[in-house]
Amino acid sequence: MKFSCNQQELSTAINLVSKAVSSKTTLPILSGIYFETVGDQIRLIGNDLSLSIETFMSATVFESGNIVIPSRILTELIKKLPNNLIEIEVNDNSVITINCLESSFKIVGLPGLEYPELPNIEDQNSFEIDKELFSNMIKQTSFAISQDESRPILTGALLEIENSKFNMVAIDGFRMAIKRAHIKTNLNAKAVVPGKTLNEINKIMSQVESKGDLKIAFDDKQVLFTFESLKVYSRLLAGEFINYTQILPNDFKSVAKVNTDQFLTCIDRSFLMARENKNVAIKLEIKDDLIKISSSSEMGSSMEKLSVALEGNDLEIGFNPKYLIDALKVIDSEEIYLEMINNVSPCIIRPIDHESYTYLVLPCRISR
Amino acid sequence: MKFSCNQQELSTAINLVSKAVSSKTTLPILSGIYFETVGDQIRLIGNDLSLSIETFMSATVFESGNIVIPSRILTELIKKLPNNLIEIEVNDNSVITINCLESSFKIVGLPGLEYPELPNIEDQNSFEIDKELFSNMIKQTSFAISQDESRPILTGALLEIENSKFNMVAIDGFRMAIKRAHIKTNLNAKAVVPGKTLNEINKIMSQVESKGDLKIAFDDKQVLFTFESLKVYSRLLAGEFINYTQILPNDFKSVAKVNTDQFLTCIDRSFLMARENKNVAIKLEIKDDLIKISSSSEMGSSMEKLSVALEGNDLEIGFNPKYLIDALKVIDSEEIYLEMINNVSPCIIRPIDHESYTYLVLPCRISR
Repeated sequence: MKFSCNQQELSTAINLVSKAVSSKTTLPILSGIYFETVGDQIRLIGNDLSLSIETFMSATVFESGNIVIPSRILTELIKKLPNNLIEIEVNDNSVITINCLESSFKIVGLPGLEYPELPNIEDQNSFEIDKELFSNMIKQTSFAISQDESRPILTGALLEIENSKFNMVAIDGFRMAIKRAHIKTNLNAKAVVPGKTLNEINKIMSQVESKGDLKIAFDDKQVLFTFESLKVYSRLLAGEFINYTQILPNDFKSVAKVNTDQFLTCIDRSFLMARENKNVAIKLEIKDDLIKISSSSEMGSSMEKLSVALEGNDLEIGFNPKYLIDALKVIDSEEIYLEMINNVSPCIIRPIDHESYTYLVLPCRISR
Repeated sequence: MKFSCNQQELSTAINLVSKAVSSKTTLPILSGIYFETVGDQIRLIGNDLSLSIETFMSATVFESGNIVIPSRILTELIKKLPNNLIEIEVNDNSVITINCLESSFKIVGLPGLEYPELPNIEDQNSFEIDKELFSNMIKQTSFAISQDESRPILTGALLEIENSKFNMVAIDGFRMAIKRAHIKTNLNAKAVVPGKTLNEINKIMSQVESKGDLKIAFDDKQVLFTFESLKVYSRLLAGEFINYTQILPNDFKSVAKVNTDQFLTCIDRSFLMARENKNVAIKLEIKDDLIKISSSSEMGSSMEKLSVALEGNDLEIGFNPKYLIDALKVIDSEEIYLEMINNVSPCIIRPIDHESYTYLVLPCRISR
């Protein structure tokens, strides 16, 4: 195998696929990046068995072949080389020679034949969605994905397509985030994608500057995200997701309209005092067009006042401030509605401008 | 005690003095910041018993007094408040009330009377030096200060003033950095300042935007750095510093002139391969107007070629690449001289433009 390519293009391709290379793997071959000549292109793959990333870059190919190159040292080395032509040659003993101007390196690789195959996903179940919109859907829901491995299905987000409506839903037992979008598709399907995959997709997409549609295809076990020459494969989570529409409350007794940023700032400061406390709760007293937000711990106490437009009953209700902060940070509307029944039933937070986002949060007990 | 002040000014003052507040202290009072009314100013102090920082800020004082406020929560809280007037009031039980617009906080403090006194340093031994120049002297030497507590005197840098010459010297047993400056003073004196103090001084000075002279005063045990209303107190290290001029070699047999950045880049890449090796050495072969820089480990090997102007003998010599990188990073001259005797004697690196910087580094054995 022998080819030459540009340092910048190689560095970009390596950075993309290395996101799926685990440094902690027990299989030595997976700590490397797979290189293969395909026509006048190089195919690169990173794979940690739950997530695989494939991309292509242009090159001048002198001799076809494949090789696995240790990821960490390759990434650092290519980054430190000048923006110039790089020549890579592999001998029969899997020793890779990398030349660039007056610099020469030899790295010991592994034969490409031993590298695992990528899954084969049929194209039947697929739809397209604007890359930026999909990233935003992840940003607005992924923080509510459960970290608790005891209910594996909740460590992923539900992707649900029905009648051209596309919903992304995340639940962790204390709160739920739902983001809705419209897409053009005849597909009706459901899949639960691991939280780690969605977070990696967002990191990768933020590195790709060009705009356009992301193609999402899946079968029973696997999902494939395709954007230009980039492919991200992931396993899906098995099992039934919670019937989330059943959880959504209605018949609200108190609806408060409040400025998103001001509310976030007040809760953020109240959190400082609550953090020293094991219960972590902050108290909201909503009454007479005012929310009083208070917290206390051994360190001290806080009291914030914020004007509010309240319809319905006065209410005293406690929340874990972190759960409010997470949602308020990603809501892009100037004002929100807080929709409440009483101080033990789920509360809904939603932007006043549109219906595309719903956040449900359970109150917590306040004992003072 | 009761005063009001501007949020930005308070935040800046807290950030300065909190650098000397340790979160790991066993004395609860030292985990706080000392506040005291002095005329129409507030005096703030942070103190970890080896380093103390004092500053003043303007305020409207309604009632004089003093108090110690827990540092971590105060710092975070003031940072999160809007840029507006902040009112701080302390009651007889050391409970501090902080009000800003519609926000109110109570924090439990400690009586100011229990806070340790600052040392008293006489002004006899003192000199002034441009703040930027002093920061640069620290930057060019502090990395060579020893981390090894078994020879405590080397965990500080020597400050030596003689006949208007001011030298800063750091030695760690494998290398030595000497930075020289001229200052206007009649003082002849020596002091060894802890490395931690010098690093903190640099952090603090980078936060202070205004330019000018820093005043350095010391007695047998303490040093005081004064810049405007800011004072930094530190203990000095006791004992005799190494007579460093005796270590400086001469009678060089090989002198090579090389481009600083190119040399740094080549060594940086060679370091990648050497890092996997316990010996960490890289090899320099200097011959025929060329330096060949090579390294090897189980991972692979590297070879870099760089043009050089050599006077004297050809030479093969090994170095710890980290020791070269540290110095090359802080040398502000386009080219350097490498002055060598043989592959076991100390080597000198110095900028070709001026005599104000000298770096000595011991070679290491190369066994291949």
